[in-house]
Amino acid sequence: MRLTQPLHKGLSERPQATALVCGGERLAFARLVERVSRLAGALRMLGMRAGDRVGMMGLNSHRFVEYCYGVWWGGGVINPVNVRWSPQEVAYSLDDCDTGILLVDDAFKKLALDLRARSRSLRTLVYLGDGEVPEGMSSYEALLACAEPADDAMRGGGDLAAVMYTGGTTGLPKGVMLTHTSLYLNALSQLAAVARPPGAVGLLSAPMFHVGGMALSLQVMLRLGTQVLLPAFDEVATLEAIQAERVTETFLVPTMIKRLIEHPRFGDYDLSSLRMMIYGAAPIDSTLLAQAMRAMPNVQFCQAYGMTEVSSTVALLPPACHVPGSDPARLRSAGLPVPIAEIRIVDSEDRELPRGGVGEITVRGPTVMAGYWNKPEQTAQALRGGWMHTGDSGYMDDTGFVYVVDRIKDMIVSGGENIYSAEVENAISQLPEVSACAVIGVPDDAWGERVHAVVVLRAGMALTDEAVLAHCRSLIAGYKCPRSVEYRAELPLSAAGKLQKFKLREPFWQGRDRRVN
Amino acid sequence: MRLTQPLHKGLSERPQATALVCGGERLAFARLVERVSRLAGALRMLGMRAGDRVGMMGLNSHRFVEYCYGVWWGGGVINPVNVRWSPQEVAYSLDDCDTGILLVDDAFKKLALDLRARSRSLRTLVYLGDGEVPEGMSSYEALLACAEPADDAMRGGGDLAAVMYTGGTTGLPKGVMLTHTSLYLNALSQLAAVARPPGAVGLLSAPMFHVGGMALSLQVMLRLGTQVLLPAFDEVATLEAIQAERVTETFLVPTMIKRLIEHPRFGDYDLSSLRMMIYGAAPIDSTLLAQAMRAMPNVQFCQAYGMTEVSSTVALLPPACHVPGSDPARLRSAGLPVPIAEIRIVDSEDRELPRGGVGEITVRGPTVMAGYWNKPEQTAQALRGGWMHTGDSGYMDDTGFVYVVDRIKDMIVSGGENIYSAEVENAISQLPEVSACAVIGVPDDAWGERVHAVVVLRAGMALTDEAVLAHCRSLIAGYKCPRSVEYRAELPLSAAGKLQKFKLREPFWQGRDRRVN
Repeated sequence: MRLTQPLHKGLSERPQATALVCGGERLAFARLVERVSRLAGALRMLGMRAGDRVGMMGLNSHRFVEYCYGVWWGGGVINPVNVRWSPQEVAYSLDDCDTGILLVDDAFKKLALDLRARSRSLRTLVYLGDGEVPEGMSSYEALLACAEPADDAMRGGGDLAAVMYTGGTTGLPKGVMLTHTSLYLNALSQLAAVARPPGAVGLLSAPMFHVGGMALSLQVMLRLGTQVLLPAFDEVATLEAIQAERVTETFLVPTMIKRLIEHPRFGDYDLSSLRMMIYGAAPIDSTLLAQAMRAMPNVQFCQAYGMTEVSSTVALLPPACHVPGSDPARLRSAGLPVPIAEIRIVDSEDRELPRGGVGEITVRGPTVMAGYWNKPEQTAQALRGGWMHTGDSGYMDDTGFVYVVDRIKDMIVSGGENIYSAEVENAISQLPEVSACAVIGVPDDAWGERVHAVVVLRAGMALTDEAVLAHCRSLIAGYKCPRSVEYRAELPLSAAGKLQKFKLREPFWQGRDRRVN
Repeated sequence: MRLTQPLHKGLSERPQATALVCGGERLAFARLVERVSRLAGALRMLGMRAGDRVGMMGLNSHRFVEYCYGVWWGGGVINPVNVRWSPQEVAYSLDDCDTGILLVDDAFKKLALDLRARSRSLRTLVYLGDGEVPEGMSSYEALLACAEPADDAMRGGGDLAAVMYTGGTTGLPKGVMLTHTSLYLNALSQLAAVARPPGAVGLLSAPMFHVGGMALSLQVMLRLGTQVLLPAFDEVATLEAIQAERVTETFLVPTMIKRLIEHPRFGDYDLSSLRMMIYGAAPIDSTLLAQAMRAMPNVQFCQAYGMTEVSSTVALLPPACHVPGSDPARLRSAGLPVPIAEIRIVDSEDRELPRGGVGEITVRGPTVMAGYWNKPEQTAQALRGGWMHTGDSGYMDDTGFVYVVDRIKDMIVSGGENIYSAEVENAISQLPEVSACAVIGVPDDAWGERVHAVVVLRAGMALTDEAVLAHCRSLIAGYKCPRSVEYRAELPLSAAGKLQKFKLREPFWQGRDRRVN
């Protein structure tokens, strides 16, 4: 399997069909292949050799897609940057996997110069925008114009295709290594698991630097469909794009679906082309589903469950579970394992539990990551016994449906982003006023969960919420910073002196059947 | 990718769901896995080591499916025998790939004893039936009862999974080597290409020793669906099975569809569960399609195009091309390439032709065979430049649809079976009365094409059709024997002395837009 194969097919089978739509740009497959092969040539000119990582810091655009295929076509490995991270975090992730070339768009060109100062590995910045080329950067379009088109390096199978960084339990981001086979198979397996509407026109508003956005992009590409790229989610832009491009499918999180259908201009648009709405990061509640189905009666809903370490998705809750009269309890399920993934629920000794028993959700199959970049111990721990340990606790029912009930890893999921408590606690603990702190996720209607900090002050010291927040902002991504701070005299500890976070969480989650959102 | 993975999933996700239905037998996944792991243990007891070939000569049954998974589970390679072949051909195929163990059912137990006398490699015969165990054979059920269940050998990826024999251009059958990856991906890719109905209940009446039947079986297994096995196609048995088991999809050739809907008892059955009819081997004509759609209004039709050397299917003509009002010319197309396959039309020098140009259809991708067993020269020739040369000539239109117009290899396709003219010509030429002969395919309403022989007799000799047929029957499979014989004074030769078969074919194909059926 080669991720570049669909480009060869597109060029051969439908060269004049539209592959990408972004703002005023429309690229047919023939033009996309031309630009991708030139980008590959340019990257080689800039020193990219087989297996080298190339970074991207940008919002969704046609150039983001070109970047992925250009790097692959040239034999390299993509390393898309989470643009929400702090410069310190981004610099760590670039250096960790030795990324020498970074592409940046207009939204991040200032940050990029700061990054070059912080990063040891970074040597070349390529400017993706159409404005004046910033000092010290090369122009993307100029490079494409002067480069010779390269031949496809024909890497594939077990060759590395991507290093995608996620937060780390130890506070340091971890680079998840995904191969051509794992990314390709993840996309193919999802298409095989749940029937998609024909004539794919996919709307990409979920960020492509996340494996979820990347997976949707690949799924459209595998069918030689059209990808419509929005820089980020916005209600009106989404409604306009669906109407104008006759979009057939998209991926959103439930809170975005809610914002969309409650928007005052929702009724002004023709959304009759939309046939499938994939959602993830959180379950959909039955009230919202009923409301969404009334608003968009032609749309099938499908939930995707997974994580970066499994190339995106290992279970899908199919449209048949989202129809009127279906079991509302089923809506809390993460779905059925996809064809390529085995799911096993194990206890803390990795013994399989009987059906219905709650334990850690583990995954086996060819879409599981090759490992964490340069972190053999964490890799061995995560993949022990040949199974990926997700850190989610849950159970499987008699009919194969998987339910997530809690998180074993100390992690918060807010607006689809994973936040490791340790990262936030490390930041807060650096304040001289803080004696101890604990960070937990609490339910939030808009974001699923939000970050909440419990702080114990040193004797005689004082601190404001604003000061905590400002301090965190200087170190970590904004979305990781606490939304609320609570001051206590002490933290609840077990007899063995171990922090009992569940006692901190309990009051926030009362009356709910799960401890994750 | 491992072909045994769905069994692990079935055991975990739906242990009590029905995996196989055959006559009065119903096997849940848990029981299937139990029997498969015992069969693997038994085969190891009989001497099967990793990578060894194990043969099967039988009609479709639950035991045929157990055989495939039992061999794979034990680390072996399946070698399903084409039961229509003559003992001489079967013995050649067994010896060629050194098959030591052969499973045989009641239909072929007599033939098997004859085979043991002819074959050098065969040492163990296992009797699959429920009757008295023939002398010199082991009983399948007794072996399962006494064997220890084996652990899955966990072979997969590029490991060999099957050697499947097809006729050869040189007159000798060729063993097509297919890996776990190629068979798995072929099934997954077909599911991804054309949306299937949920809740898969597949009816297998196409023979599983063919890659087409094998592929449907895998497609149902990948979804953990139910396989309903019929020993062979029969109108009433098919209608009864669809009604009784609520079958959702099946695979037939157009002539079987015709026989089904024209059967006097067709109207007596409830076929409302049937949602998809895949057909292959020949295009469907618009009259038959219209008739079939009236008879089965809920059914979507889909054509599959491929060959053993590509693990079954590289193009699908989707249901959207089979609806009332769709372009009748499209119905003559072999369809659109599936996601995993690239198709390129080349001239005799392997240069790609411009769109619309007629040349050889070649295929690239991970479902292409690993090669022909023990035939490096034929492998190199078939796979030259990394592309499988199908031997079909055709073109691709501007929208990616592939059309087959003729056959480059001197091959006849009758009732879905490939027949190489050379095999038949070799047989006929052994008659002392024959001076020269040529074998061609001519159109046939029931079988697509049928075998027609043109014979030049030696001076003063005479021969009857019956004598030709009886002689052929003693050497080659019945379906390869000529259905009609024509006697001529000479064969049409070019100035260079090369046989001009097209001149022999021409009168039979007048008024048709293709030279294949």
